[in-house]
Amino acid sequence: MAAEIFPSYPPELSQTQLSYLLQTLTDYSLSHGLTVRPAESFVSEKLSPNGSLATHAPVTLFPSPFPRSCWDEGRAVQRGYNELYARVAGNEEWLEKIMVELSEVDDFMARLHKVHLDVKAEGFVQPLSLGLFRSDYMIHVSPEDPRATPVIHQVEFNTIASSFGALSTRVSELHRHLAKMGAYPSDSIINVESIPVSPALQESAKGLAVAHKAYGSGGKGRSTAVFMIIQPGEKNVFDQRWLEYELLEKHGVQTYRISLPDVPKLTKLASGTRALIYSPPHAPNMQIEISTVYFRAGYGPGDYAGEDDWAARTTLERSRAIKCPSVITQLAGAKKIQQVLAMDGAVEKFLVDQSISSRIRSTFAAIHPLDQSPPGMAARKLALEKPDTYVLKPQREGGGNNIYRGDIPGFLKSIPESHWSGYILMELIEPPALENTIIRNGGLMSGGVIGELGVYGAILWRDGEGEERGKGLKEILMNEEAGWLLRTKGRQSDEGGVAAGFGSVDAVLLVD
Amino acid sequence: MAAEIFPSYPPELSQTQLSYLLQTLTDYSLSHGLTVRPAESFVSEKLSPNGSLATHAPVTLFPSPFPRSCWDEGRAVQRGYNELYARVAGNEEWLEKIMVELSEVDDFMARLHKVHLDVKAEGFVQPLSLGLFRSDYMIHVSPEDPRATPVIHQVEFNTIASSFGALSTRVSELHRHLAKMGAYPSDSIINVESIPVSPALQESAKGLAVAHKAYGSGGKGRSTAVFMIIQPGEKNVFDQRWLEYELLEKHGVQTYRISLPDVPKLTKLASGTRALIYSPPHAPNMQIEISTVYFRAGYGPGDYAGEDDWAARTTLERSRAIKCPSVITQLAGAKKIQQVLAMDGAVEKFLVDQSISSRIRSTFAAIHPLDQSPPGMAARKLALEKPDTYVLKPQREGGGNNIYRGDIPGFLKSIPESHWSGYILMELIEPPALENTIIRNGGLMSGGVIGELGVYGAILWRDGEGEERGKGLKEILMNEEAGWLLRTKGRQSDEGGVAAGFGSVDAVLLVD
Repeated sequence: MAAEIFPSYPPELSQTQLSYLLQTLTDYSLSHGLTVRPAESFVSEKLSPNGSLATHAPVTLFPSPFPRSCWDEGRAVQRGYNELYARVAGNEEWLEKIMVELSEVDDFMARLHKVHLDVKAEGFVQPLSLGLFRSDYMIHVSPEDPRATPVIHQVEFNTIASSFGALSTRVSELHRHLAKMGAYPSDSIINVESIPVSPALQESAKGLAVAHKAYGSGGKGRSTAVFMIIQPGEKNVFDQRWLEYELLEKHGVQTYRISLPDVPKLTKLASGTRALIYSPPHAPNMQIEISTVYFRAGYGPGDYAGEDDWAARTTLERSRAIKCPSVITQLAGAKKIQQVLAMDGAVEKFLVDQSISSRIRSTFAAIHPLDQSPPGMAARKLALEKPDTYVLKPQREGGGNNIYRGDIPGFLKSIPESHWSGYILMELIEPPALENTIIRNGGLMSGGVIGELGVYGAILWRDGEGEERGKGLKEILMNEEAGWLLRTKGRQSDEGGVAAGFGSVDAVLLVD
Repeated sequence: MAAEIFPSYPPELSQTQLSYLLQTLTDYSLSHGLTVRPAESFVSEKLSPNGSLATHAPVTLFPSPFPRSCWDEGRAVQRGYNELYARVAGNEEWLEKIMVELSEVDDFMARLHKVHLDVKAEGFVQPLSLGLFRSDYMIHVSPEDPRATPVIHQVEFNTIASSFGALSTRVSELHRHLAKMGAYPSDSIINVESIPVSPALQESAKGLAVAHKAYGSGGKGRSTAVFMIIQPGEKNVFDQRWLEYELLEKHGVQTYRISLPDVPKLTKLASGTRALIYSPPHAPNMQIEISTVYFRAGYGPGDYAGEDDWAARTTLERSRAIKCPSVITQLAGAKKIQQVLAMDGAVEKFLVDQSISSRIRSTFAAIHPLDQSPPGMAARKLALEKPDTYVLKPQREGGGNNIYRGDIPGFLKSIPESHWSGYILMELIEPPALENTIIRNGGLMSGGVIGELGVYGAILWRDGEGEERGKGLKEILMNEEAGWLLRTKGRQSDEGGVAAGFGSVDAVLLVD
């Protein structure tokens, strides 16, 4: 049973109040680019020639209450997380063992790893790496002590294609506008001051601009620009476009959108320098040198239709352009890494400042080994006697399904005890009960929801060169917390207690 | 034959250039609220629940070349025009004769005039009037001397519901963005510096804010706000919404949208002060005092379904709120007034500064009486012998159809010469030849176009009070040129040479 820390929310609306709220919300969203291309199932391509229609992004009608201490904490640890993952990506000795293990069970990871190793064998020509990360959390309220201060527990850490930054900025502006326009009942807890504007759009663009500038001038007088690697037919295009507009208007930096299949046709590497040279199809005589390759595609196996796409990724990795992220940084975002970091004291290895590493560690859900060490034996007792707040996960990714709660004792008893150490026992995140209404394609869905707070980070670092590559990062040139995102999904009971159903972008309503 | 002062425009595009231009244009428009609700014929209401879809406004792919001297002149005379029409509206003695004549042939004008007279009989309680005007021009190139400097000739002067201000700001930003993104061939004449951003959105909102502030505080501690009178089901809603957002964000002024039929249900006049008190349907216990009534509806007979709507208009006119415009100001925008101003030296009567009145007069198309005065006799000769650049119009509005060009001599000969003085001879505007492409609902239309430059003006003035009302305005509190609009329509040959076909919003590309 989820803890009720947000009682009587959202406020009830009369029919006229709802109608005013919807009109105000819809027009504001469609004016301010809080938009997506409509899904095929909503509006067919035939009806929208040249992509001429947009609909508002799926959003919540109300900002969701969020404990201020949780929001503060997520933002406070982000710079530490940025550094942690940059140091992970820069330490191949530590990564190697995990990568080999992962590669055995995951072809996609294996292939990515091969790209990295191939380029490493040839030698990298760009020591700088850019990370635009997002650390995702859920609020956790201990079921045993629902009055304890809620905390955040990390769900995952994204090192590639962290999306919704621009829409998170826009949705916080939307909810503030609705509050200013009197669209929420005046006796509700919603007020403008408690809805901070997420600077994710501005800060992400700034990260790209800093990398672009650090790249320096193009060779032979070529002008420089940023690449955004996109999926063909992307529906979340406006979230991406805003970064491009911000880069152009605030930083004077041009961005070109390109899909992986087009990379071989439209680019070449300058001999020697391996500068990435782009000739746009609309101006084939131009030669533009790409300073920074920002991936909004390429994060999953579905983005690589065949060898040509892998060759394209390899070309980008080989090039002198700064990658956001490099292949090794993408690999550092594997779920398995998150698990290893939580288990083996690696956080303290990478971050020597104890005050930072301990705060990061406190955002991890508790993970216990089931081996024969004293903590392992204690965890075995928990698993057999009080399993209701735990999930049992195989240590090897891809090694089987997770076992939830009451199923754990029976499962453990069904396998030989010698195999138990192949599993870990992980505390489930128990988000508090909350209701909200999501509007999507103009239709409303009300009920229980679960929110996921993503905190963005931007970090630019320098790896070692030549033989020193992979032996620890050399210098951090920029390290910033870069705004946040609240994604809210319909709560559907599933065994894992993990958020499911349609997602929407949401704003935090800070509560003390 | 139209003069060719803009040869080889627009630049030719390859298929890839066109595709890049369209994608860039569409995404920018849909991000930045250069949008309209799709027409029913394009997307049915059923497919767009809660108005959840938007499409880009009809726009030109290229900014249209426009002579800088014409643009300068239109802007330079706008403050004079503002004052001229404010003084016309404030001088009922001069207006009265025309109104009586107009009322005989035009029921709508008659009804509006009655509203004015009824409220006048009771007495006005608000001496301030706001005008957000737009003076519309076409470029005129004398067919007899196509190398002469092009000039602007006025098409009409709008004193109510001058629209497209916000979209004109957005489309100039769009065309600048396209130029910055390299979407126009680099060897074309299009460059960012030649595409000024129209400040129509900001200046129109400022005009409303100045009126709002001049109104002063509400009675009994009531908060104040602006009314926007709208048509139900308005498709051009985002053009209106931007004014609302600008008023809120820059000036801290709330705007409420209301249709005429809702006025009686949701407002009342405070007894004595006749303050206009609004209780929003979503917050029926609130009492908001309306400072300024801004009409984006009510300009034509179609906006008055019956007596209730006329009663609503009368209530608004009787109220203490500042009207934008008042009924008499709306009447001052009648086509007939424009004609009379051009004929009888009235400009000089209202504007004593000769340098201003003569510049205004030079924007009028030449109008000649056909009476027996010496100028009239000269005009009769023109009409019979060189009619090709003229239109013959009845003096009395609604008195019959216009006769164009070569049809004039035959028509004159078919009626008794004693009736000739009932007509005027007016020079036709001859816009130069120009080509462009309009995108509307995602579809393209290329070919000859005609542009119409609208220059916005904002003026706040004080009329006389009591017996002095209608005897000339007392004080001008603000008088500004307020940006511009270029509307571009497909050129279709019709007898009048008047622009026809689909319209689009466009930006000026200034050429010297």
